[in-house]
Amino acid sequence: MKFERDNPPRWFASDNNASVHPAVMAALERANRGHAVGYGDDPWTARADALFKATFGRDSESFLVWNGTGANVMALGAVLRPWEAVACAETAHINVDETGAPERIVGAKLLAIPSADGKLTPELLEDRLAPFGEIHHSLPRMVSISQPTELGTVYGLDELEALGAFCRARRLVLHVDGARLSNAAVALGASLLEAAGPADLLSFGGTKNGLMYGEALVFLDPALAAGAGHLRKNVLQLASKLRYISAQYSAYLGEGLWKENAARSNAAARRLARAVEEAAGIEPAFPVDVNAVFARIPPESLAPLARSWFFYPWDEKAGLARWMCSWDTEEEEIAAFAADLARQVRGA
Amino acid sequence: MKFERDNPPRWFASDNNASVHPAVMAALERANRGHAVGYGDDPWTARADALFKATFGRDSESFLVWNGTGANVMALGAVLRPWEAVACAETAHINVDETGAPERIVGAKLLAIPSADGKLTPELLEDRLAPFGEIHHSLPRMVSISQPTELGTVYGLDELEALGAFCRARRLVLHVDGARLSNAAVALGASLLEAAGPADLLSFGGTKNGLMYGEALVFLDPALAAGAGHLRKNVLQLASKLRYISAQYSAYLGEGLWKENAARSNAAARRLARAVEEAAGIEPAFPVDVNAVFARIPPESLAPLARSWFFYPWDEKAGLARWMCSWDTEEEEIAAFAADLARQVRGA
Amino acid sequence: MKFERDNPPRWFASDNNASVHPAVMAALERANRGHAVGYGDDPWTARADALFKATFGRDSESFLVWNGTGANVMALGAVLRPWEAVACAETAHINVDETGAPERIVGAKLLAIPSADGKLTPELLEDRLAPFGEIHHSLPRMVSISQPTELGTVYGLDELEALGAFCRARRLVLHVDGARLSNAAVALGASLLEAAGPADLLSFGGTKNGLMYGEALVFLDPALAAGAGHLRKNVLQLASKLRYISAQYSAYLGEGLWKENAARSNAAARRLARAVEEAAGIEPAFPVDVNAVFARIPPESLAPLARSWFFYPWDEKAGLARWMCSWDTEEEEIAAFAADLARQVRGA
Amino acid sequence: MKFERDNPPRWFASDNNASVHPAVMAALERANRGHAVGYGDDPWTARADALFKATFGRDSESFLVWNGTGANVMALGAVLRPWEAVACAETAHINVDETGAPERIVGAKLLAIPSADGKLTPELLEDRLAPFGEIHHSLPRMVSISQPTELGTVYGLDELEALGAFCRARRLVLHVDGARLSNAAVALGASLLEAAGPADLLSFGGTKNGLMYGEALVFLDPALAAGAGHLRKNVLQLASKLRYISAQYSAYLGEGLWKENAARSNAAARRLARAVEEAAGIEPAFPVDVNAVFARIPPESLAPLARSWFFYPWDEKAGLARWMCSWDTEEEEIAAFAADLARQVRGA
Repeated sequence: MKFERDNPPRWFASDNNASVHPAVMAALERANRGHAVGYGDDPWTARADALFKATFGRDSESFLVWNGTGANVMALGAVLRPWEAVACAETAHINVDETGAPERIVGAKLLAIPSADGKLTPELLEDRLAPFGEIHHSLPRMVSISQPTELGTVYGLDELEALGAFCRARRLVLHVDGARLSNAAVALGASLLEAAGPADLLSFGGTKNGLMYGEALVFLDPALAAGAGHLRKNVLQLASKLRYISAQYSAYLGEGLWKENAARSNAAARRLARAVEEAAGIEPAFPVDVNAVFARIPPESLAPLARSWFFYPWDEKAGLARWMCSWDTEEEEIAAFAADLARQVRGA
Repeated sequence: MKFERDNPPRWFASDNNASVHPAVMAALERANRGHAVGYGDDPWTARADALFKATFGRDSESFLVWNGTGANVMALGAVLRPWEAVACAETAHINVDETGAPERIVGAKLLAIPSADGKLTPELLEDRLAPFGEIHHSLPRMVSISQPTELGTVYGLDELEALGAFCRARRLVLHVDGARLSNAAVALGASLLEAAGPADLLSFGGTKNGLMYGEALVFLDPALAAGAGHLRKNVLQLASKLRYISAQYSAYLGEGLWKENAARSNAAARRLARAVEEAAGIEPAFPVDVNAVFARIPPESLAPLARSWFFYPWDEKAGLARWMCSWDTEEEEIAAFAADLARQVRGA
Repeated sequence: MKFERDNPPRWFASDNNASVHPAVMAALERANRGHAVGYGDDPWTARADALFKATFGRDSESFLVWNGTGANVMALGAVLRPWEAVACAETAHINVDETGAPERIVGAKLLAIPSADGKLTPELLEDRLAPFGEIHHSLPRMVSISQPTELGTVYGLDELEALGAFCRARRLVLHVDGARLSNAAVALGASLLEAAGPADLLSFGGTKNGLMYGEALVFLDPALAAGAGHLRKNVLQLASKLRYISAQYSAYLGEGLWKENAARSNAAARRLARAVEEAAGIEPAFPVDVNAVFARIPPESLAPLARSWFFYPWDEKAGLARWMCSWDTEEEEIAAFAADLARQVRGA
Repeated sequence: MKFERDNPPRWFASDNNASVHPAVMAALERANRGHAVGYGDDPWTARADALFKATFGRDSESFLVWNGTGANVMALGAVLRPWEAVACAETAHINVDETGAPERIVGAKLLAIPSADGKLTPELLEDRLAPFGEIHHSLPRMVSISQPTELGTVYGLDELEALGAFCRARRLVLHVDGARLSNAAVALGASLLEAAGPADLLSFGGTKNGLMYGEALVFLDPALAAGAGHLRKNVLQLASKLRYISAQYSAYLGEGLWKENAARSNAAARRLARAVEEAAGIEPAFPVDVNAVFARIPPESLAPLARSWFFYPWDEKAGLARWMCSWDTEEEEIAAFAADLARQVRGA
């Protein structure tokens, strides 16, 4: 589906379609002076490291990388040997949206688990992992969850704790894909660390929440970080001019930008869900915990609507649409979209 | 070796220690408006694509990636099956400075060839590849050269042509690692395309020449680009907010920045070589074709000198130092460095 | 579950628990004279090659390897680039029983499809592959089916043809895992080639049917075999003393051993199914097309029964057992087993 | 070079061209009775395991695999993470004769070191590893030596000890490729364990010394064996009918076959070297420590001689030939070969 691009409004396709927040641009400008040692031995990275430790614990070890797929693959690669397996939801980004990068680069097996709302539970894991244990099967070693999930749902703190207990009992490493962790934390009224729950390692993103590029792999269990310096380069994730990622994360963590932007996009999604319900009588398909609204509309309405309001049909056959809000989504856009949707659906 | 960092001057460690050129920052600011479809379906990338075709031929296909190691690994991955081999100089970045990323991600064999000046020749290749041809050995399929080399030397157009003829005769694919191709082109008084010679595919960099991040993999032979869209994501090289890389390359190619910056750093290196020779009587170890000066100094002088002028000893035992100039290297720095070097060497 | 081993009878655990057929031992003895060039350039391999061409078509190209996992991984590796995907049934050996070897060695993605009887259909494939097609997803390139399936069911010739048509229309390569293809051919009353249907490449096994070791990867589409000589060594599948595998396959194909042994084990399974039904009133869970009988028995009977008759519970919770017959299964064993089962089940 | 095959005598191409020793065939026959659990849970493997422990220490852990390349790749895969490196001689089998299998399957970097006689020394290692230590370079983690080397030379016990001390001091794991370890042990008048020196893990072969197929990976340091059960399957090295490999190794270790056969082939090589020197005045190029004779002859004699006595020219340009003796090499063949060689060389 191609978007007609003449003068597009802010739209609802993805939070990574939004522009870079002005405070981030300002941080980049400030970092742009004189020479700095490459690959992280610079004052901007030292400052970012300190903020990561303040945020995720003084024993944590953080490594800035290019993007979310890079952070996820590096996380798997830090833990898994090729004869081991990671369990994840069938909808997980590592399973669906990374063009097989985990398989290619880490070589380990993904054990994908169907889940109605994108969340894993100890019961789902128990069932999936039960048959494993022979040398003919990959050895389960890791669980990866997304917080929030790719369906816009958020694990409650108790759900996280239950998963952590399960993993500890089974000696499984828990990874959290937190590409939108800021949105989950705001939804939970929790700190970023609390929102990551008992994770052993965390992919922590900002690009979908106002940054230009760069993500962090945070080892909450620093014992897993042995060799991570080499590993980062080995999986193509080491930026030479690292200060420019570091400066962005310093603004993100140090100036509260993560919270401000996530609060705005979460609020926009709630408003959008309400507007859609009021205007067109359509309820969200999943709880609108963060900045995504999923809804089922008549399948034949998907294409016409997406022509004027670029977004991704999640399941074309089922008429399931995903509308993402961003840090810069405006009230008028929500109202106009809801009105167009109502017209489209009534006509359908 | 740790650098004493209080108020460092511009130094000679690496051209990737320099800051981002103001014209690039301006381009980033201009690109930072409204929403843009992610992953390259945006007007900035369309503009960059057009400039790449204007530069490298209308049949060429270019893919923007995160960095030079990413471009190189993607180049190898586009061509090589895991039972094949690529020949390269022993000093090649892919062989020495990528923490084994080619082996890990592509799985193919590197056939490293010792070379005094970092260049390959048909004769060197002939000797190295002669014993191969049985199923017990990896099948030679590709040659990778660096233009300029990691030792700061530049292949002449005739040398490139000879390598091209060798590769064509042997049905070998020719890859050029052009992380500093702009410097080579300026040195040769040639276009970027001419400086790449008969390459089939090219890693084309800008980060060492004034950009913030991003490199391009250019398929000069578009037949090799089949599957490259998937491959880019599969090797972790697809930026979601791609417009910000595209905008940089548009400035780089469309505003002549590549030439202006490379001309400045090349000239600085020539000046530095002259100053060092005049002040300390030390001649360069290799021809100063581009922006690198290699020189042998008393090994015991390396460390003291590097304390006030951060740079990398290339071979500590041999006293071989590498001094890189950047787009922002100033005349006074060169003069001051040469004077310090002279003092240090005389004292040694 | 450990087997009490004192003087075990022939049992029902797996057809690879059986011994080597005397005709195969005789062939090995005959091949054991004088020197032979290693790695396949020997008269025994020449003879085997001729028999493979007689069996699978004169354009086919066959490569003898160590075992079934080796043949399967080599098949995937001959076709798939790491950004591509292969669709298979969730129960497929490549998905479940190879400890992640395909992911590790080929690096490509497996798209596993739930299937009640272990078979794939165009409809199942259509549904699974529909969402793919973007650069964020692995590119479907191959379909792998098992003939017979791991559940002991056999694709009819019409089912094979329908899959072949689907694959041709979608430009997908069709692979058949024929570890027990001989049993399928006998079941279908067809030749081995017919039983492989419109496969482009075939893993053809004999170890489960009376051989000592060795399997063949048969390229029915010889265009896919480019590089296969190197690939075989590259994936650890090249035997130095290859004549001893070749001699076995010459006996297998040239002396009709494949058919004789498969006919015996298929017949034994039919007899076993009937005996179990008569003695204990238990019907097979799936059609007994070849030499496997699956049946649901009271879960608490599984362990006691398996103590005297070693076999593998397929799903302990569900009480699903698998009983495999071999070329050497005897009638008395079947009768005795059925009687014991009946006692056990009645007691349960 | 193709061999004219009509009625070839025993020749000097490779010790893997020889047939299987009768005692091994007898052991295979004895193992061929009744059913045995697959994958190693059988009495023959239990017996082999006991013999391996008797030979290599009761803490050692041994895993039978298909062949030498399999054992080597499994050894590297047990130790190396993909960002790590293994140092080896340039002539090492893992570097030259495995079609890039280590790179493909393990993904780690090989640091090949030129060596005149195929041996590594602490000094050679020191020089090669000195520049490593930054995150841009693969991390040295392992040293692999061949005992005997591919050039037929044997490490003395003192040389082994010196390498062991070097590795311990640098925390490097020491691997010994012992495809022909029996020949080295006989040459040293030492036990197999002594001939392996302070190895942490050992590829132990028998196929070149009278077996049909199968090799062992011996973990002398059992701490490295964690996960090895899964790893073996994961790298395609797990035989289903494992008893047939186990039975061979029981004969090999339990009946002294390793020693008897190696003594015969070593003696044959000494005799051959002497005969060649006497008949043609040609001295060996390297010490004839085991069953290989290397010699330089006029390059134009290589091809004609190899037509009647199949062998591999090691370096065609230099006229360097390799003649391997086997457990079944006969005195008359040596005499006839030496006479032919003398004729050929005098005519050249």
